[in-house]
Amino acid sequence: MQTTAADFQQRRRHLARLYPHPVLLESGPKTRNRFRAESFFLYFGGWNHPNLTMLLQDGEATLFYDPPETEQAIWEGPGPDLHELKHRYGLSRIASLREMPQAATRLNPEAPEELLQAAISLRLLHDQAARNQLEQAVDMSVRAHFQAMRATRPERWEFQILATLLVSVTQEGGSPAFEPVVSTRGEILRNRDNQGTLQRGDLLLVDFGARTSEGWSAGLTRTYPVRTNYSSRQAEIYEVVLAAQKQALAACRPGQEYRQVHRAACLGLTGGLVELGLMRGCPEDLVERGAHALFFPHGVGHLMGLDLRDMEEFGDRAGYAPGRQRSRQLDLKHLSLDRLLQPHMAVTVEPGFYWIPQLLENPEYTEPFRDCLNLDRIAAYKEVRGIRIGDNVLIHETGSKLLSATLPKEVQELEIVVNS
Amino acid sequence: MQTTAADFQQRRRHLARLYPHPVLLESGPKTRNRFRAESFFLYFGGWNHPNLTMLLQDGEATLFYDPPETEQAIWEGPGPDLHELKHRYGLSRIASLREMPQAATRLNPEAPEELLQAAISLRLLHDQAARNQLEQAVDMSVRAHFQAMRATRPERWEFQILATLLVSVTQEGGSPAFEPVVSTRGEILRNRDNQGTLQRGDLLLVDFGARTSEGWSAGLTRTYPVRTNYSSRQAEIYEVVLAAQKQALAACRPGQEYRQVHRAACLGLTGGLVELGLMRGCPEDLVERGAHALFFPHGVGHLMGLDLRDMEEFGDRAGYAPGRQRSRQLDLKHLSLDRLLQPHMAVTVEPGFYWIPQLLENPEYTEPFRDCLNLDRIAAYKEVRGIRIGDNVLIHETGSKLLSATLPKEVQELEIVVNS
Repeated sequence: MQTTAADFQQRRRHLARLYPHPVLLESGPKTRNRFRAESFFLYFGGWNHPNLTMLLQDGEATLFYDPPETEQAIWEGPGPDLHELKHRYGLSRIASLREMPQAATRLNPEAPEELLQAAISLRLLHDQAARNQLEQAVDMSVRAHFQAMRATRPERWEFQILATLLVSVTQEGGSPAFEPVVSTRGEILRNRDNQGTLQRGDLLLVDFGARTSEGWSAGLTRTYPVRTNYSSRQAEIYEVVLAAQKQALAACRPGQEYRQVHRAACLGLTGGLVELGLMRGCPEDLVERGAHALFFPHGVGHLMGLDLRDMEEFGDRAGYAPGRQRSRQLDLKHLSLDRLLQPHMAVTVEPGFYWIPQLLENPEYTEPFRDCLNLDRIAAYKEVRGIRIGDNVLIHETGSKLLSATLPKEVQELEIVVNS
Repeated sequence: MQTTAADFQQRRRHLARLYPHPVLLESGPKTRNRFRAESFFLYFGGWNHPNLTMLLQDGEATLFYDPPETEQAIWEGPGPDLHELKHRYGLSRIASLREMPQAATRLNPEAPEELLQAAISLRLLHDQAARNQLEQAVDMSVRAHFQAMRATRPERWEFQILATLLVSVTQEGGSPAFEPVVSTRGEILRNRDNQGTLQRGDLLLVDFGARTSEGWSAGLTRTYPVRTNYSSRQAEIYEVVLAAQKQALAACRPGQEYRQVHRAACLGLTGGLVELGLMRGCPEDLVERGAHALFFPHGVGHLMGLDLRDMEEFGDRAGYAPGRQRSRQLDLKHLSLDRLLQPHMAVTVEPGFYWIPQLLENPEYTEPFRDCLNLDRIAAYKEVRGIRIGDNVLIHETGSKLLSATLPKEVQELEIVVNS
């Protein structure tokens, strides 16, 4: 469902109430690659077009735009009908760029704190139009993942699976929200290499999300075997990660600290690893000491919205409640969300287990935990490499909705899809 | 065929002969999207990796690179084996970034003119390794075009055809060399919109090229009907453009000015339009006066290499022979190559016919040519919109080789592929 003129007008009125001064929005300069306007321009302005400026004042919007002159039109086309444009995005006026006020405050990372806080607070809690877009982004991502699962087979290259994801989302008029991860070496967290071939029995980690044509982004991760079933070691760890994710998802409700969602994942993971004999001790103590981060060195998720990691360009203003700062602990320093969850927030929940030699074979990291790590047992799980399970969640008044509920993640369901 | 260590070493020795001073190459900072190193780094250095510096001195190469530290390796992996790296790219030494000389001259657009001219002169004439890469890029592009032709049918969206191109090239381990044009509105030259649906009888213009994993780029254009045959008007204009392109291709030989290749296309096009009755007069006179540019307002092509428009970031240093400057004429000001053709240059040849309302319905442009334009007859061809035929050519000692010879462009051949 498209965001309507009335939706954009409502957003502008809300901003005017929180920050009753003129605000200039800029869509940003043209780029070599496919253009995408600045997220705040898309949020309040709507039109994904370069070199635009919009003035928001008293809830009204004036777009500064000059239709292309002849020689520009040869290359880029004649430009839209101005009457339609006004109607589509609920604009009060379209004026020439020459009329643009130079003095008004621009909404960008250097804007006054008061404006930033006001604008960020709107995007933090998604209105109905935004929620529709997020659901659409997730649905497109789910269909792409299904295609990738079915395309996964031995002897294929990783980039062939990547191509399947891209074609699925492009065929629906979307685009990838970020550079995907498609790798049997899931232990490298930001692995952008897709030059490997798939071998029967490998686990393939796919972290992929779609962006809608309006610019809203999703991101889902699944880790599944290449045309066979999980090996027993793989299945043991997969079940641990899955249980950890379920505990984290159960913690997603209004009034809960997102930090507790992260903690629920850490406790779930640690409890499972203790049961499997990779660690020893009481999970609460182990997590308190940070031992879990040897296997799970990142945060459990982040805000979702127009940007995949929504509003990250504004530092921790969106992700961290006022007055809070990042911890220095191995996992917490990568936790980009530390706020009380509220209805209409959208977040990812994506814990993982990673067998990272640079951590698990490095005494500098293992020595402080020698009393609670069973290194021999850990070594036996090296083949598992990396497993991550990531979903997208919308908080509502009484709990939360798993937007990606239709994408399988139980061991058996995944095996059925992959081997079908 | 991969570029070998010996190939890179030979390039470095050649540069040392032309510019016998130390030179620093930088691969460039990491980017949000898939990283691609600066072209000169790829040309002399080979490794497509961010934040690298290489010192070229006396034909020897020292790479300044620090393997990732633990916490970086968690995200990006452990980094390559240094011994293999030296071997693969023919490096004399790998040193820490701390040892990097700050004073040496960097090869970038601000480099001394003497260095720029030396380095550009090497990339202007492609060595065997470069020619192999260009052939590979063209072959991948041809296969992608075939897939797109077969996928073209009524009611599909333009972005579905785009997806077919992307999947073809991605499945072969390549990537798109530039943002493709896939549009039934071919008269908008740089049309990046793919939101239209295909209707039976439309002409679809597809301008697409692949980039190899080493970074070498191709770009081919075809314009064909959607699951039917060309209408008689479409076929008339198509044959005119095709004849113009053939005349331009015939002009591609060593010792010829590329400007004459452009002129051959203009004459061919104008001659055809005179025969069809859209223009009146002697083609030589019409081209002299610039009348052809109302239908063909761009240059016939450009240099090819690592960049699609090779070395364009260095202004006209690569494209224009010393002392030459761009004309102000509508088509010639977009002509990005004005040099004597030499063996081992690679160029595109891509003339077109465009029915651009902003030109053909604008008295400011048509009035100077009122004596030689038949506006009524021209109006009857508005449905044709835009047709471009673009191929890639390698100049050799006695003539030239059409690298994209296997991609059909005769009317009947195209109809057979599209309707099959």
